[in-house]
Parts: sequence; C-alpha cells; structure tokens
Amino acid sequence: MGLTHFDEKGNAVMVDVTDKAITEREAVAGGRIRVNRKVYEAVENGTAKKGDVFGVARVAGIMAVKQTANLIPLCHVLPITKVGIEFFMYPESLEIEAVCTVKVTGKTGVEMEALTGVSTALLTVYDMCKAMDKGMTIRDIRLVRKSGGKSGNYERQL
Amino acid sequence: MGLTHFDEKGNAVMVDVTDKAITEREAVAGGRIRVNRKVYEAVENGTAKKGDVFGVARVAGIMAVKQTANLIPLCHVLPITKVGIEFFMYPESLEIEAVCTVKVTGKTGVEMEALTGVSTALLTVYDMCKAMDKGMTIRDIRLVRKSGGKSGNYERQL
Amino acid sequence: MGLTHFDEKGNAVMVDVTDKAITEREAVAGGRIRVNRKVYEAVENGTAKKGDVFGVARVAGIMAVKQTANLIPLCHVLPITKVGIEFFMYPESLEIEAVCTVKVTGKTGVEMEALTGVSTALLTVYDMCKAMDKGMTIRDIRLVRKSGGKSGNYERQL
Amino acid sequence: MGLTHFDEKGNAVMVDVTDKAITEREAVAGGRIRVNRKVYEAVENGTAKKGDVFGVARVAGIMAVKQTANLIPLCHVLPITKVGIEFFMYPESLEIEAVCTVKVTGKTGVEMEALTGVSTALLTVYDMCKAMDKGMTIRDIRLVRKSGGKSGNYERQL
Amino acid sequence: MGLTHFDEKGNAVMVDVTDKAITEREAVAGGRIRVNRKVYEAVENGTAKKGDVFGVARVAGIMAVKQTANLIPLCHVLPITKVGIEFFMYPESLEIEAVCTVKVTGKTGVEMEALTGVSTALLTVYDMCKAMDKGMTIRDIRLVRKSGGKSGNYERQL
Amino acid sequence: MGLTHFDEKGNAVMVDVTDKAITEREAVAGGRIRVNRKVYEAVENGTAKKGDVFGVARVAGIMAVKQTANLIPLCHVLPITKVGIEFFMYPESLEIEAVCTVKVTGKTGVEMEALTGVSTALLTVYDMCKAMDKGMTIRDIRLVRKSGGKSGNYERQL
Repeated sequence: MGLTHFDEKGNAVMVDVTDKAITEREAVAGGRIRVNRKVYEAVENGTAKKGDVFGVARVAGIMAVKQTANLIPLCHVLPITKVGIEFFMYPESLEIEAVCTVKVTGKTGVEMEALTGVSTALLTVYDMCKAMDKGMTIRDIRLVRKSGGKSGNYERQL
Repeated sequence: MGLTHFDEKGNAVMVDVTDKAITEREAVAGGRIRVNRKVYEAVENGTAKKGDVFGVARVAGIMAVKQTANLIPLCHVLPITKVGIEFFMYPESLEIEAVCTVKVTGKTGVEMEALTGVSTALLTVYDMCKAMDKGMTIRDIRLVRKSGGKSGNYERQL
Repeated sequence: MGLTHFDEKGNAVMVDVTDKAITEREAVAGGRIRVNRKVYEAVENGTAKKGDVFGVARVAGIMAVKQTANLIPLCHVLPITKVGIEFFMYPESLEIEAVCTVKVTGKTGVEMEALTGVSTALLTVYDMCKAMDKGMTIRDIRLVRKSGGKSGNYERQL
Repeated sequence: MGLTHFDEKGNAVMVDVTDKAITEREAVAGGRIRVNRKVYEAVENGTAKKGDVFGVARVAGIMAVKQTANLIPLCHVLPITKVGIEFFMYPESLEIEAVCTVKVTGKTGVEMEALTGVSTALLTVYDMCKAMDKGMTIRDIRLVRKSGGKSGNYERQL
Repeated sequence: MGLTHFDEKGNAVMVDVTDKAITEREAVAGGRIRVNRKVYEAVENGTAKKGDVFGVARVAGIMAVKQTANLIPLCHVLPITKVGIEFFMYPESLEIEAVCTVKVTGKTGVEMEALTGVSTALLTVYDMCKAMDKGMTIRDIRLVRKSGGKSGNYERQL
Repeated sequence: MGLTHFDEKGNAVMVDVTDKAITEREAVAGGRIRVNRKVYEAVENGTAKKGDVFGVARVAGIMAVKQTANLIPLCHVLPITKVGIEFFMYPESLEIEAVCTVKVTGKTGVEMEALTGVSTALLTVYDMCKAMDKGMTIRDIRLVRKSGGKSGNYERQL
C-alpha cells in the first residue's frame, strides 16, 4: 500500500469513502510538553488555585478537534460524537502530557482529530507560559490507540 | 514574572498590548516527524516524482499560520507579512523536519504562528502517510529563533 | 442531574452521544431588541422600501446557525436540515423580535443553534442601527419550543 | 443621520472607513442570564470546586470577539489589542452577568466585538446548564461604555 | 417552480430537507481561466519542474469545497465523501481548465460544492500569476454533470 | 518577472511584504452569470417585490471578501476598509453582472478580495436559482480596475 492520498497521476485527492460502512470508531492520541521548573510550578499552582492553564488548553483542544477538516487539507468532515482531553503532570521530567479521546459514528476514523486536539492543547499551554520559558519543547505527539473501521484496532507499544 | 495570560483574579485574558510599539518581528520554529522506512521512501519518491506530500503539507501549514488566533484562544490577530515552510529529510534517523518562518509588523511576536505552522504541516504529513504507518511520532516542536519586540532576540542552543 | 458538560474530575468534555438515536428534532428560539423611535422607523421604512435591515440580519443569523459548534465550545457539529428566521415589529414597545427555527435529523438537539441564530440576527440589527442609537438593548433570548430527542418536548409558558 | 450601512440605492455596504484616523478605542458591554436555583447553585459550586462553567464561557467569549467580523456581515476586521470577560453572580435575582471589555488601535470602534463576546459567553453558560433548566433567559445585552473615535465617549445611564 | 430559497413571505430560508432521503450523489463542475502566453508557459514549466501552481490551487479548491456552507448562505452542511480536482491545459486558446468532482451520501446534492471548488482553484491560479498578467479572465464556471437525488441526473450539452 | 509565489527552490511562499509601504489601495472586479429567461424574470420580480436574491448574494459576497485570506492560500490578511457589491441586469443577453469594490490601507492590494467577492456573490445567485436552471454559466470574472501600490494603476480595456 502506497500513499493513498494521491490519484494515479500523483494529484492530491480527498479519498473516496462513499462505499465505506458507517461504524463506531474511537481514537486516543497523546503528546507532551517539556517545560522548565518555574513554568512547571506556575502551571501546577495555577491549576490548583487560580490561573487554570489546563482549563483554557482543554477548550482550545476540543474546539480544534472540530476544526480538523479545515486544517488538514485531505481530512473528511466528521460528525464527532465525543471529545475529552486530560492532562497529566510528571514532576521528575518536568513534562506535561495531554491525552485526547475522540469518538465518531462515521465512515472514517478520528486519528487526525485526536492528534489535532493534542497538538492544539499543547500549543495553548506553550502560549500561556512562553513569557516564562522560550525553550519549551512539544514532543511525542502520537496515536495511542484506535478502534473501529476496516483497518481494525491499533494499540501502541509504549 | 508569572503567568501573564491571567488577571489578578486568575481569569484568562487576552493580554492588553495597546501600548506596545509596532515593530518588525520574526520567528522561526521547527519540528520533526519520525516515520518508518516505507513511509520515508514513499515521501522521498513522491516529492521527486508524483505525489508531493510536502506540497500539500506546506499549503496546510501556511494556511494554519493565518488561523493561529482562531486556534490558540489568547493569541492576538496579527497582519502577517511573510510565511515560508521548508522540509528537510534525515535518512539515518528516518525523520522529516519542518521549519516555518513567519514575519510581521505588529505589536506582538509571531512565535505561536510559527509553531502552529510547523505543527499543522507535520500533522498533514502524518495524515497523508497514516495508511502505511500508524506509529509515526511528531517530536521536538520548538522555537528556533525570534527577533524583534521588547523581549529581544532569542536563539536556541541546539 | 448536575452539570452534564463536565466529567467526574470536573473537566469540560464534549458529551458522548455515540449511543443516542438519530431522530428528527426541532427547536424554536426567540429574542428581542428594544430601540428608540428613530431607529424603529428607519428599520420599518427601510424594510418596506430600501435599506433592508432584516434581509441582512436574516442571512447573518442563518450563517451563524451553521457556525454554532465553532462558537459554543462543547456543542456537537450537526447536519442541520432547515433554518428560518422571522422578524416581528412591536410599535408600542419599540421592540423588534427575531424568531429562529432549526431542524435536524441527528443525535442531539438544536436548541443552541436556534439561540445562536437569534442572537446573531439581533446583534446584526444592532450593528446596522448603532449610529442612530447606542442605547439599544437585546433582551429575552430564550428557547420557545423544542421537540424530538430523549428529553421530549418543551414549550415555554409565555 | 439615517441607516449608515446602506448606500443611496438601499444596498448594504461595509462602510468606507479609509479616511478615518487610527485611534485607541475601548468598549465595554454587559448582559445577564437568569437561571433557576438549581443551576445557580451548580454554577456557583462548580466555579469554586470543579466544573468551571465560567472558565469555558470566558474562553468562548474571547474567541468569539475575534470572530465578530465573520459573524456580523458589515463589521470591519480589527486588530484587537485586549479582551477580558468577567462574570458576576446575583443571588437574589438568580442572575449571572457577563461583562466584556475590548480594546483596539484602529479605524472603527469595538462595540460589536464587546457585544458578541458577552452574547457568546452567555450562550455558552446556557449550553452547559441546559440539561438542568430549559427556561433560562438571556437579557439586557447592551453597550455599557465606549471611548475613542469620532463619535466620542458614551456611558449608559443604569 | 419558482425561487425555492424564499418562503411565502419572500424571506430567505435554508430549505427544509428533513424528509429527503439520504442517497449517494455526485456532481462535476468545470471552469477555465484565460491567461497570456507568458503566464501559460510559466505555469506549464512550473508544474513540470518547480513552482507547482496546480498543486497549491488543488489544495485550495479541496479545502474550499469543505467551506461551501460557510460561503453560500443557504447551503446545507454536507458530509462530503470525496473531492478531486484536475487541471487541463489548452495551448491554442491559452486556457487552463479546472474540473472538480464531489461525492456525498446525503440529503442534498453537491453542485454548489463542486462549483465552489472550481471557482476557488481558479482564483488561486489567478493569485499566483497576477504579477505577470492582470488581464486574466475566469470563464465558463458551470455544472458539467450531476447524479443522484430526486431531480435525477443532469449532463450538460457541450 | 516570473511566478512570484515560489522561492528559489520552487516552494510556495506567502511573499514577504514586510518592507512594503502602507498605502491606500482600491480594486474593482466584475463578473457575470448567464441564466435562462425564467430565472431572469424570477430574479427581476423577486428583487422588486419579495424574494430578494441580490440582497442575499450581496451579503455573501461581502462576507467572502473578509475570508479571502482563508480561501486563497498565499493571500495576506488585510484590514479591509470598504466593501460594496452592485448588480446589473442585461435583459438582451439574460446576464446578471456583479461588481465588487474593495478598499484597504495596507501593504498589498485587494485584487483577490474583489475577485473573491464577485465570485461568491455569483455562486450565491446560482445556488438560489439552480432549481429552475441547471445550465447557468458564470463568466468573465476579471479585474476591472485597481489603484495604489507599487505596480501602479490598472484599468481594463473593455
């Protein structure tokens, strides 16, 4: 199987999914941002008290999931049925992880939606903390798990 | 300096930049996607012959730069004056790097725009290759360089 | 029943509707704007002759209905099957009423779509008349009626 | 002064502001939503503990401010320099008030932006609470204050 | 049959399609841009070597297809299942033709989507070549073929 | 002068306009749609009485002008200062003409904005009349006049 998003002439196409079955599908994606200690503590304190970075980043990620087909040129528009985003903090590595779960009853999967949600949530964390640390790095944005659809289930070995 | 995107009550705000000077600013961001050998070769061959993954991903990234303020909740809308995106291929590590350069004559910097451009370009590469490899990982999205504005120049030690 | 748009940890989520049935649903929302006499007469004359405020406001409202899921963070994207907006004028109270009817064959209701349509239509009236009256007030935006879906029918006592 | 958003033939136009001076402008708009006691208490408790309705509604309102020119047909696109949204709770009347402040350095005022921010923030509160109360009413969306620009300052008598 | 997009009072409406059957539908639209010889040769050479005008224009057209309901006020939002855009060059007439094919499984047809895709693709060609020729003309944007839906098949006599 | 929207490697770029002067610029574009007699008369009667096709199409065109940079990948975002759209009817040729005038005080011209406004206005006419005539053709979308900017004035010989 080669690059599916091109026709036989090499032109980009939005792949024809007319004949695919409508099934229930789910995808989970994750990613991390590494920050310095000052940022890590500010985020931790803000979430507990005031200045809820994750609250803003979660809304940004959820809204971005709904914009996926307007950002990724060859993605299909999908009637998303669920979006959730969770954050986890790792004090040893000074990393913050975002995990985005998306569900749909549709003709194609929601991997790109979950990845876009993670990516936008982490970029929003970056934005809100960039005055304190310009060296933050977003890393390991990846598909964690998917189910449903013809290509079957996938679970990443960690 | 703490989290600048919250007011004294802890509420998220779009920071007041009314009194900031309009200056020429530039930001460069980079990021990589690690793929398997099959994808690496398909992308390499497609770019040379037919099936230009980078052509599509570049347009996606440029358009996303212009959508930054609609994706990142507290970003200001900026009259971008230049966007360019380049791709580099690393055969040893099977990585593809995207580098996005953004310029503006405005009151705030364009770091988030450059990071959003890189992120969307790499997600588009992911989308177009995901039928061949579900284990691709996007990594090391980071600010490479910025100039202009009150906080001065920044260049990342690599 | 508490706040349904948060998970057990208190995080905002787009509620999972995967298992809900696809049914025909309708919602009607209304709202009013109170204007001064000069505006009232200008709108009345314009509609009859030239300067059709309602024509512009109706288009704005219809287009906003389709943008609801991009404005209201936790709303689902829905394949709207009908939108109509009507205006009524009340000379005694100098009020203009907008009523928006939305239909869908989908998994969730269209209350938010109807309310967003009314709200945007009235904001557009405000915009077009604000040079004549800065004291206009938008009031009583409310759900008038809904049908379909598990929560059944609703009709507001007026 | 009649309806300024139509030309002499009665056609809607985006008014020519080419020759207007770029000045610093500010607008403050407010509005309220009346809820039942159950919703009032859920919102109050959620904000204090978990389930932060205002956190989500504030982000929605800020993002909507940036979309104003895409919602209100004849509005100009403006380089907004500040957006803030605050909420106030009135236990006697079971009302929640949203107040949105917008600033710009531009050729036209930001009244519509502030009103759109308030309106979207209140619609988001409605969305998040509608499972508990379908009878909520949004009321008294109005310009509270504006400054800057040729038409001078305005402050509403309350 | 008169103008279907107005109700009996003459108000614009998004037509009620609630009761229409979900069927497989396809539409093909075409259009041309006439350019001068210099542009024609630059596009031809660029496509073969470097500077792929059609690559950019194709992505623009595909993305515009997904935006149709946000551009054309009374269009329904549709879950597009396929989009493809092809370009043809006519050296005698110095014309470039764009042909856009759209498929959907839905309640209304995709004529407007195909026409919007063609139109945006040709505007993008214009944009990329306008420094060389301001006299380019876009012409003959038309429906070429449609199938599916109650109104049956259509094929244009050329 | 070759294709300005590619860099020396042949990659599409949003051209750097950082150093261009901010000047007052205007562009006028026109285009026509040819319809059958039944449509022509329905549009003519609707405009005069009820069913105002041009009212809807004008709003669509004005809103599309503001979306130009989101449709045409390499266009700059511009702070448009004026948009107007007029329609003219030609009974002999059964053609309807749309003319869009756009002004800006900015670093690049507004040709693409004017062309996008015309194109979207005509597509909207098509949409509202397509139940009566599938053979309508949009033709002769072209720049009529531009002024301001380094490349100077342009006026098309008709």
